[in-house]
Amino acid sequence: MTELNMNKPEAKLWGGRFAESTDALVERFNASVAFDQRLAEQDIRGSLAHVAMLGAQGILKGEEVAQISQGLTEIREDIRAGKFEWRIDREDVHMNVEAALRDRIGPVAGKLHTARSRNDQVAVDFRLFTLEAALDLAGLTRQLRRVLVAEAQKALDAEVILPGYTHLQVAQPILLAHWFMAYAEMLRRDEGRLRDAAARMDECPLGSSALAGTPWPVDRHAVAGALGFSRPTANSLDGVGSRDFALEFLGACAILAAHLSRMSEELILYSSFEFGFITLPDSHTTGSSIMPQKKNPDVCELARGKTGRVFGHLLGLLTVVKGTPLAYNKDLQEDKEGVFDTYDTLQAVLRLYADMLPRTVWHADTTEAAAARGYSTATDLADWLAQRGVPFREAHEVVGSLVGLAARSGRQLWELSGPELSAAHPLLTAEVAQGLTVRQSVRSRQSYGGTAPERVAEAIAAAQAELEG
Amino acid sequence: MTELNMNKPEAKLWGGRFAESTDALVERFNASVAFDQRLAEQDIRGSLAHVAMLGAQGILKGEEVAQISQGLTEIREDIRAGKFEWRIDREDVHMNVEAALRDRIGPVAGKLHTARSRNDQVAVDFRLFTLEAALDLAGLTRQLRRVLVAEAQKALDAEVILPGYTHLQVAQPILLAHWFMAYAEMLRRDEGRLRDAAARMDECPLGSSALAGTPWPVDRHAVAGALGFSRPTANSLDGVGSRDFALEFLGACAILAAHLSRMSEELILYSSFEFGFITLPDSHTTGSSIMPQKKNPDVCELARGKTGRVFGHLLGLLTVVKGTPLAYNKDLQEDKEGVFDTYDTLQAVLRLYADMLPRTVWHADTTEAAAARGYSTATDLADWLAQRGVPFREAHEVVGSLVGLAARSGRQLWELSGPELSAAHPLLTAEVAQGLTVRQSVRSRQSYGGTAPERVAEAIAAAQAELEG
Amino acid sequence: MTELNMNKPEAKLWGGRFAESTDALVERFNASVAFDQRLAEQDIRGSLAHVAMLGAQGILKGEEVAQISQGLTEIREDIRAGKFEWRIDREDVHMNVEAALRDRIGPVAGKLHTARSRNDQVAVDFRLFTLEAALDLAGLTRQLRRVLVAEAQKALDAEVILPGYTHLQVAQPILLAHWFMAYAEMLRRDEGRLRDAAARMDECPLGSSALAGTPWPVDRHAVAGALGFSRPTANSLDGVGSRDFALEFLGACAILAAHLSRMSEELILYSSFEFGFITLPDSHTTGSSIMPQKKNPDVCELARGKTGRVFGHLLGLLTVVKGTPLAYNKDLQEDKEGVFDTYDTLQAVLRLYADMLPRTVWHADTTEAAAARGYSTATDLADWLAQRGVPFREAHEVVGSLVGLAARSGRQLWELSGPELSAAHPLLTAEVAQGLTVRQSVRSRQSYGGTAPERVAEAIAAAQAELEG
Amino acid sequence: MTELNMNKPEAKLWGGRFAESTDALVERFNASVAFDQRLAEQDIRGSLAHVAMLGAQGILKGEEVAQISQGLTEIREDIRAGKFEWRIDREDVHMNVEAALRDRIGPVAGKLHTARSRNDQVAVDFRLFTLEAALDLAGLTRQLRRVLVAEAQKALDAEVILPGYTHLQVAQPILLAHWFMAYAEMLRRDEGRLRDAAARMDECPLGSSALAGTPWPVDRHAVAGALGFSRPTANSLDGVGSRDFALEFLGACAILAAHLSRMSEELILYSSFEFGFITLPDSHTTGSSIMPQKKNPDVCELARGKTGRVFGHLLGLLTVVKGTPLAYNKDLQEDKEGVFDTYDTLQAVLRLYADMLPRTVWHADTTEAAAARGYSTATDLADWLAQRGVPFREAHEVVGSLVGLAARSGRQLWELSGPELSAAHPLLTAEVAQGLTVRQSVRSRQSYGGTAPERVAEAIAAAQAELEG
Repeated sequence: MTELNMNKPEAKLWGGRFAESTDALVERFNASVAFDQRLAEQDIRGSLAHVAMLGAQGILKGEEVAQISQGLTEIREDIRAGKFEWRIDREDVHMNVEAALRDRIGPVAGKLHTARSRNDQVAVDFRLFTLEAALDLAGLTRQLRRVLVAEAQKALDAEVILPGYTHLQVAQPILLAHWFMAYAEMLRRDEGRLRDAAARMDECPLGSSALAGTPWPVDRHAVAGALGFSRPTANSLDGVGSRDFALEFLGACAILAAHLSRMSEELILYSSFEFGFITLPDSHTTGSSIMPQKKNPDVCELARGKTGRVFGHLLGLLTVVKGTPLAYNKDLQEDKEGVFDTYDTLQAVLRLYADMLPRTVWHADTTEAAAARGYSTATDLADWLAQRGVPFREAHEVVGSLVGLAARSGRQLWELSGPELSAAHPLLTAEVAQGLTVRQSVRSRQSYGGTAPERVAEAIAAAQAELEG
Repeated sequence: MTELNMNKPEAKLWGGRFAESTDALVERFNASVAFDQRLAEQDIRGSLAHVAMLGAQGILKGEEVAQISQGLTEIREDIRAGKFEWRIDREDVHMNVEAALRDRIGPVAGKLHTARSRNDQVAVDFRLFTLEAALDLAGLTRQLRRVLVAEAQKALDAEVILPGYTHLQVAQPILLAHWFMAYAEMLRRDEGRLRDAAARMDECPLGSSALAGTPWPVDRHAVAGALGFSRPTANSLDGVGSRDFALEFLGACAILAAHLSRMSEELILYSSFEFGFITLPDSHTTGSSIMPQKKNPDVCELARGKTGRVFGHLLGLLTVVKGTPLAYNKDLQEDKEGVFDTYDTLQAVLRLYADMLPRTVWHADTTEAAAARGYSTATDLADWLAQRGVPFREAHEVVGSLVGLAARSGRQLWELSGPELSAAHPLLTAEVAQGLTVRQSVRSRQSYGGTAPERVAEAIAAAQAELEG
Repeated sequence: MTELNMNKPEAKLWGGRFAESTDALVERFNASVAFDQRLAEQDIRGSLAHVAMLGAQGILKGEEVAQISQGLTEIREDIRAGKFEWRIDREDVHMNVEAALRDRIGPVAGKLHTARSRNDQVAVDFRLFTLEAALDLAGLTRQLRRVLVAEAQKALDAEVILPGYTHLQVAQPILLAHWFMAYAEMLRRDEGRLRDAAARMDECPLGSSALAGTPWPVDRHAVAGALGFSRPTANSLDGVGSRDFALEFLGACAILAAHLSRMSEELILYSSFEFGFITLPDSHTTGSSIMPQKKNPDVCELARGKTGRVFGHLLGLLTVVKGTPLAYNKDLQEDKEGVFDTYDTLQAVLRLYADMLPRTVWHADTTEAAAARGYSTATDLADWLAQRGVPFREAHEVVGSLVGLAARSGRQLWELSGPELSAAHPLLTAEVAQGLTVRQSVRSRQSYGGTAPERVAEAIAAAQAELEG
Repeated sequence: MTELNMNKPEAKLWGGRFAESTDALVERFNASVAFDQRLAEQDIRGSLAHVAMLGAQGILKGEEVAQISQGLTEIREDIRAGKFEWRIDREDVHMNVEAALRDRIGPVAGKLHTARSRNDQVAVDFRLFTLEAALDLAGLTRQLRRVLVAEAQKALDAEVILPGYTHLQVAQPILLAHWFMAYAEMLRRDEGRLRDAAARMDECPLGSSALAGTPWPVDRHAVAGALGFSRPTANSLDGVGSRDFALEFLGACAILAAHLSRMSEELILYSSFEFGFITLPDSHTTGSSIMPQKKNPDVCELARGKTGRVFGHLLGLLTVVKGTPLAYNKDLQEDKEGVFDTYDTLQAVLRLYADMLPRTVWHADTTEAAAARGYSTATDLADWLAQRGVPFREAHEVVGSLVGLAARSGRQLWELSGPELSAAHPLLTAEVAQGLTVRQSVRSRQSYGGTAPERVAEAIAAAQAELEG
């Protein structure tokens, strides 16, 4: 963000208390250029499309169009090069650009604003930004899905076992690949939500003018097309006064952030000494000069913590919109910073996770040993009995007594002897018990969507096919 | 909600402090039957589909299937008739139904739970409910859109004028029909969001079992089809552990509620003495026995106020999900009440508005007079001059001086005399000024999406076509 | 909650779609008796105080006061006995009680409402409830503090060691007693917030009437005193229109819930197989018939999950209040359910934790072994060297090299030999290293507020003194 | 905020997609210096107090203390002068200052960190900031209260009448002074909440070290005193791991923001053409070059809209804290920006309102006329009858019929004739009716806290006495 040409407000307020005059405070309070300068690219793109249309419709002369377009293009170059002077007394990005245009090409600059209002101008700028942000995050989400699927394939190839938890208690063994694919599924829907939001906001509000449309013979379809929108918005009041496109974007982002917070939580747990399942890469952790084996999962913790700001931005904008009458109110100026920050936050997290996951080392021996804890295959034994006609209730009792026996003697179920087993139920043998390993358990769960290797391989293949498409 | 067979907790806690034992408190704290009994229909539907599949796959015998199905059907009838005794010691809807089934048909009831877990059972119940709720609200939103479009047509036929506001200051005159269509546009997107959410959650989690799938030879596609889902979920961990379907539903509802809060705010303003634009129907207001002309817009105020609970439910569930590891955690039990209450709230508001709007009387003379305030057509005059080649800056100055002249003498622009006008600019005549009525202003805004009657008529026709489809 | 005498809305809406007429829907939408009947005790208490004052001021005759008081007392008994018929057509708790009074004592009942309005009536009812709820939760928080301090004393007596974590990585050993006292500190502030909120809301709004006060010669100070308030509210508009007392209550509850969610998270982690630090009592967990050693920490998970609803209620009421003009608006009817539910939720969690913690078993060997992981005493060695004049940077390097040496050979620092140590730095000896146990580390942290046993003992003593006071 | 010495992240990310290397992204993601440089004053103040204590305790030599203190003082001067180079590779404000100190005074700089950790360092910095912010906002709230009371006095002197609203319907006339005092009451409690929060956070965490305290013989009470705290925190885990002080600050700010949003809403309504009650000062509105009488209440709208970000920051930090284990986690780095922004936002709004209100013009004729609408004094007539023994129900019927008569003939109640009145009830006379003016109504409401001028005068006097104290 380029430095503003103003006395630094924070320094002033905090240091020399209220050196700032009230008028300056009003000016700064009202001004949005400190953050909406980020829309400069969109603003100029919108203006170029608008002025071209004004020319095509005969509202402006070709020469005027050329002058204005040339001026805007030069201003854009200045901005890109960091040479543009943003002025807070010019309030917002629109006035800064327009005033700079006047400075550069003279009074003809004023014709740019023909058949347009700041209301539809900011609406189109912000919508362009949000649409691009939604598509960018959708793409990054897709990229992270590719990473997850690739990691799943690697984990499947090695048949790495992970404890499956409910209530953070080991419940049943699963494939690590299955765990990766669970997050791939969540992100698939997240990508869908972002793309649905993008599709729904794909309408150009320019030409709505202040709120009622314009008497000038504009061609809104042409402008929409030039800016890459599928169509113009169908109602001018709605075009300048609605912000549900930003709310839907923030809502999709909040759910995505919630999913990333769950993965973060698990990675933090797994990287603790107590779990010991993974070693995160040095590049994504911080260490201690004195305890070299220590690694703080900073990136994961921040990814989890930043969920707060994303939720906060969503609730913030919902609050802004609540109860405001149509059409434009100054309250709506508050729509931008939360969207910018949400975009930046998730862009970073998605990129960092796509980079971090392939460099994370899974300790397969540890995870497999953990998966065997808590007699996680006891239900398999009960299922085995039930499949042979033993009533469920009885099967459960039999297995419960065997687990008790094993636990009292510090053994696993597959370490029980033949006589011990047959005493509990005549169908049981040492051979049956020896099949109760976590690996056998995993392999047995052949239902569609289950953790058996064949099922996971199919899920990976289906995801790869979709992701290539 | 049927009364629970328990000592009333509120009464006990508040009155005889802590008469309740801790064990009873734990039981009640853990139990969800007080609210999840609302899922009884979905629960039994799911069980019927499951048991039919178990029969078709040869896992249960035909006789067993028949017994269980018959028992479930009878229990459903009891529940519908309000004759079912819900027991808190049976914890949740699932255990209440299953235990009642055992009471009724004996041990064979236990076979119903073959190849199933409470984790996937509650997942399918709640998803069925949420899916139906999303579609129901989508339908009611569509119904309200029909009402808005019909009201727009009536208002267009009468060419009723309304002030268009920015910053709650009269800005430009618009058609009341245009105002109705602005909300119709918002609700069109709201319906879209609900339908997108429904489509995304249209996957059946049953068969995910506890979290890893099941070794039983189940047919998940058959169950999904029987329950009206398009497909089964593709990953068992995700199937039992994810709640983004509920979050997306709540997110769509929050935006819908925000839109309804804006309309409510406007109706409350419009029904004040100061605005005097509308008279709300007696049926939707409360009065005063002593001041018969007074009408409190209770329904509108509640619709606005209930936005709070909808936002709160969204944030609440986001908070629940944040940072929880996979797969099922008891925290997720907290997912239901917010969805139920959001559904009930919006169902009521949508129905009430669909009923209230056609019975609301608009005072066209008042709204038209209000629309003329603040020299709302001054920009039309500037546009008129600009269209004749007068530079914008000059046109604005000319009009500003005329507004000042009119304001000082308490007249409207169209009441200025020919000499007064031509003194300001030679192109201006009394005839021009007399065209500056609000009605002319509205008629001039011919841009696509603008408020000119032709444009609004087209928008209405397009909406009608879509709504008939 | 006593069943309402109405057709059950959920059943009707869901089953026979829209059997309910719109008028009935409006009635139910507007009515609050389904939830505000919970204020019946407060409502009648307020009315009794009001009518007594009306008598004392000569506004009502003694006989009228007696009749009304007698009638109210009888109604209260009916309500307490569950014999009162709540009617939805009578809208709210106030009208239900007043109408029942008229049914019982005839037209004189109407005099009860002299110099009063429903606006100040509901304000006093709800404030009484919230004040009592705040004080009750403050008391329960204090009770839980007592439990924490008692547990700390037990843990101190046994000198139980716990790993202290940062980033969920073992950082430094601490006393378990210190951990208990950390939560005792948080809850001390939580209690303070609740008591501050109670003190600030300790003003009686009755007598504010509709919004402007009343022309009747009432004695508001007498009514305030009779109801246990310290004083009447000082401004009638504020008295009926403000709800910051409820917001402050919800805010204090949200922070309390956040603290409880942190403790819950830790207990859930500690009860996992991987940590293995604690065994939660059977009474507060659920198990598995088939895996008897498995315990799901349901109460902790729900306590963590219910944070969501508490946050949601806070946000919900903030949203309701945002942007509403003075004085009373129907929106404010939405203030109650969130407060009721927050109170119920936290009351339950506080009681359950006070009961659960003393019954939780800590596995001291496991926690002490865990505390030694990750060379958690390495900083002690660096501090030891620094205290002897070795520059920090050098001390860190020396210790880092020793940790590396120990880690490569799978030893703890205190298992290094004298020669290994002195090779790293001449001041180091085996004796020094042998002092690097977790227990020595804990004992060395003698700074005020530190984890050394003497410091923790002082903290416990101070807390006990305060809690006895 | 001083520009960071880094490639501008927004420019890079958006423009040349992903030119930034992942390592740079990790660095930037982890780094907090972009925002925590704002804590530089607090950080250096904390370090100066710490090093002085280290000297006094004999841990550092006098010479070392002098060198370090001198270096820190010089760095502070550089920062204040905007000459300090903030480096993102030095991560945060602490490392930037410490590294600059080492650059300046050499290795002795390393001794500053003796007996301290970044965990307690950031805890004390942020607490100092938040404490000062709370006290500053409390002072500004108090200042705004002074303005409200002064405005109330002016309005009382002129006996300006305002309609009192319920449901935005004119209900009863009140004094404008009473309205001002209602907000003064709300802000009194807001100030109290901020001061309570400040008092509760008035404990110094420095010396908690990483989490367990320190073995160095520090004097935490001395450091606390030197920094202006009343005492040190009593538990080191709590000292570094808790953020409820920030949550309580944000909670108090959210309620304050809600109150300001209500006043903003009313001022926006009152400045509409339809209400026409006030003219806001030019300095706090924006106008239109073409419609000079138009004034957009920008400051009020932004004050209302910015409620969203304040609510969002509160919910954001609650989300961050939810479910995080003790003690420090990187998530907690997310605590600062919301506090900074909330402080800046409310500081600006409080100052702007204190400046704007005295310059706002109230149109007393308009407000008084509005107050007479809707037969707002009808209840006064009913009260008058009731005070003379007419049963309430009958009194209401009589007045209702008179209002109906007046409304049908377009008159006020006080314009009814003697015969018309006595026909309705024999006690009524023209003289009685002529007393039913809004002014008489206001004067009659003599109850404590009522709107009668004597009562409001007392309230103003009490407030003035408190504000002088």
